[in-house]
Amino acid sequence: MISIVDLQRRIDSGELSADEAIAQSLEAINDQDGMIGAFVCRAEAPRAQSAGRLRGIAVGIKDIIDTSDLPTEMGSPIYRGFQPRADAAVVMMLKRAGATIVGKTSTTAFASLDPSPTLNPRNPNHTPGGSSSGSAAAVAAGMIPLALGTQTGGSVIRPASFCGVAAIKPSFHLVPKVGVKCYSWTLDTLGLFAAGVKDLALALSAITNRSELLTLATVKAPRIGLVTQSFAGAPDEAGAEALRIAAGAAERAGASVRELGLPEIVAEAWRIQPIVQEFEAHQALAWEYRTHHEAMPPILRAKLDETVGLTPADYDAAREIAGRAREALAQVFEGIDILLTLSAPGAAPKGLASTGDARFNRVWTLMGVPCVNVPGYVAEGGLPVGVQIIARHGDDAGAMASARFVEEALRPL
Amino acid sequence: MISIVDLQRRIDSGELSADEAIAQSLEAINDQDGMIGAFVCRAEAPRAQSAGRLRGIAVGIKDIIDTSDLPTEMGSPIYRGFQPRADAAVVMMLKRAGATIVGKTSTTAFASLDPSPTLNPRNPNHTPGGSSSGSAAAVAAGMIPLALGTQTGGSVIRPASFCGVAAIKPSFHLVPKVGVKCYSWTLDTLGLFAAGVKDLALALSAITNRSELLTLATVKAPRIGLVTQSFAGAPDEAGAEALRIAAGAAERAGASVRELGLPEIVAEAWRIQPIVQEFEAHQALAWEYRTHHEAMPPILRAKLDETVGLTPADYDAAREIAGRAREALAQVFEGIDILLTLSAPGAAPKGLASTGDARFNRVWTLMGVPCVNVPGYVAEGGLPVGVQIIARHGDDAGAMASARFVEEALRPL
Repeated sequence: MISIVDLQRRIDSGELSADEAIAQSLEAINDQDGMIGAFVCRAEAPRAQSAGRLRGIAVGIKDIIDTSDLPTEMGSPIYRGFQPRADAAVVMMLKRAGATIVGKTSTTAFASLDPSPTLNPRNPNHTPGGSSSGSAAAVAAGMIPLALGTQTGGSVIRPASFCGVAAIKPSFHLVPKVGVKCYSWTLDTLGLFAAGVKDLALALSAITNRSELLTLATVKAPRIGLVTQSFAGAPDEAGAEALRIAAGAAERAGASVRELGLPEIVAEAWRIQPIVQEFEAHQALAWEYRTHHEAMPPILRAKLDETVGLTPADYDAAREIAGRAREALAQVFEGIDILLTLSAPGAAPKGLASTGDARFNRVWTLMGVPCVNVPGYVAEGGLPVGVQIIARHGDDAGAMASARFVEEALRPL
Repeated sequence: MISIVDLQRRIDSGELSADEAIAQSLEAINDQDGMIGAFVCRAEAPRAQSAGRLRGIAVGIKDIIDTSDLPTEMGSPIYRGFQPRADAAVVMMLKRAGATIVGKTSTTAFASLDPSPTLNPRNPNHTPGGSSSGSAAAVAAGMIPLALGTQTGGSVIRPASFCGVAAIKPSFHLVPKVGVKCYSWTLDTLGLFAAGVKDLALALSAITNRSELLTLATVKAPRIGLVTQSFAGAPDEAGAEALRIAAGAAERAGASVRELGLPEIVAEAWRIQPIVQEFEAHQALAWEYRTHHEAMPPILRAKLDETVGLTPADYDAAREIAGRAREALAQVFEGIDILLTLSAPGAAPKGLASTGDARFNRVWTLMGVPCVNVPGYVAEGGLPVGVQIIARHGDDAGAMASARFVEEALRPL
């Protein structure tokens, strides 16, 4: 994979020009994307910028995020050829930080569950996960050092785990989602994919102009709450193994690790997350669902068909539970620095029929807390399995610092 | 003005067909809009729907709200001819409730302060207010019974006050803003304009599918906190007079009215509201501001130029104050049912150079609480002046019930 930190060091030292860095990414895309299918559209002759902390960094943008000079097709024929007028806020933030947008990456239709044709670069017989399939795959394949995704259930952390890349779903509202196709306004959150945690920190700091996100304070002995999310069911053996390995490595590196039960209200929030998600989706996607019912992707259409009876009262009750769970979770963080848990049930499922299961992600999206995937373990078939580091709302710097600690602890000697 | 309740009664009784109701609105637009300039674009041969609670109701949509079959130009040449692919969520909600979209209404550019050419139907030498200028004017002129606006500072309540129509800015997130051009994601709120409070209740209930908003429980003796918002400066004589008249009428009708000082943190929230607003606008309008600087409307451009130095730290501090003010305001509502305050400093200013001042609105937008304008008084020149009824977050039914009480109390014998 291409490390942003490395690229930046080489550009700063004059060893590599920003133009050469972009050219290398374009070449890697030319070489590999025919096989992987991470990109749905590419910029015409993209050039490096001459200044900015992300100069020379080639970025892929999930194709539900508006771009003023590239179509934005939402992974659906309903949006074929659709050309937004403006760039999404986050695209402008990337450009202002010096980055170069090299193309739009493959997304499941409307960032839901119907698979895109992208293959997993670690093993092409397996899904890369979704919905940010192309972004995770493009970074994993070493085509680009940075990509944008979004998460409503588990659409950033899950594909990162399946593809073996670092990713962050930041605190809700840290990165504005103006110009991003909405599925659920309470849940949708932008996220970043990169080679490692330091690369994420550099990129997130540069686009938000928040220096506190850049300096990953050395965490010597994080207090880690190990969480199995039993309300979400049991993981596969590979998922459990990744968590065991990460917890053991962290403990050996000096962390205190203790298993933690979450308050019952958090489990309840896990159960009602789909109500919030689908009630809002019925409104957010009303035009598509009502006027293009036949053209809707079948898994999404079936999910909306099933949930058409959700009422405002169901939704209000669910939101009330979410509010109480957020308060209870804030209490949990009084005694610990981070939670360590599964990024996904296990390794990427075989085939492209399913993008996998978000059951270990969805409550954290509803809680609005920062989540980082750190690749932790490689299962049979060369399939990576990550672990998820979670901090309190607003503590994105802490989440990344502890994720960096876990990443270092897991590094082969 | 055209009352939705009236129209519905006549349609239900068979006295009027839904088609005739729409035809009357189209005729009224033909007759009057050449002078008022409330519409920027009209639907081609709009037809009534045959079912739905809002069948026969002609609606105008502020032109920052996406429509799949009409351009959406944001009041700016930067968006000339821009055709969204989908309808905004709220447009679909209106259609599903049976309403007929008859056109797009004039907005200040990007819902900011640069005036649109719309005249005030009560007195064409005065501004109709902004930013939802065309929506307020079209309802006030009796062209249509219902219109959609948005409020970031005071863009629903202020034009309603200036034009003498009822309006509600509901609780934050009651009406989804998917497909609405963003200025500030923390503040932007959709609102409705109609002839009277019962018309608002009927429309808001129909589009949200929330029956609790329809039955305006008879409020016999609301406990009213009278608020002058001294932190926002003194009102004009006409504004103060409107508030005196409304408070007196409510008291005579059985309400308990006592003057109330607001906690200092609410005044502080009033002071920092512009920081939240402009910090987010710099991100939401980054593409327009950075790539079309010369084409930006001059007042908005100057405001963005002035605030270009706002930092994430400024913004975080402002949001923290807003959070504390929301908690303090919730406490205020423990002892009262509603707040009664100014809708605007006074009557509509003369000329079209300014759309007036949002200083008596902006803190309530930041608080996310439901606000209703009730026309209260007619000043010199036939210029209406409204008063503002405010309830706790989520109590939209209570806000409308008490607003109805005040409206009745103010009705000439």
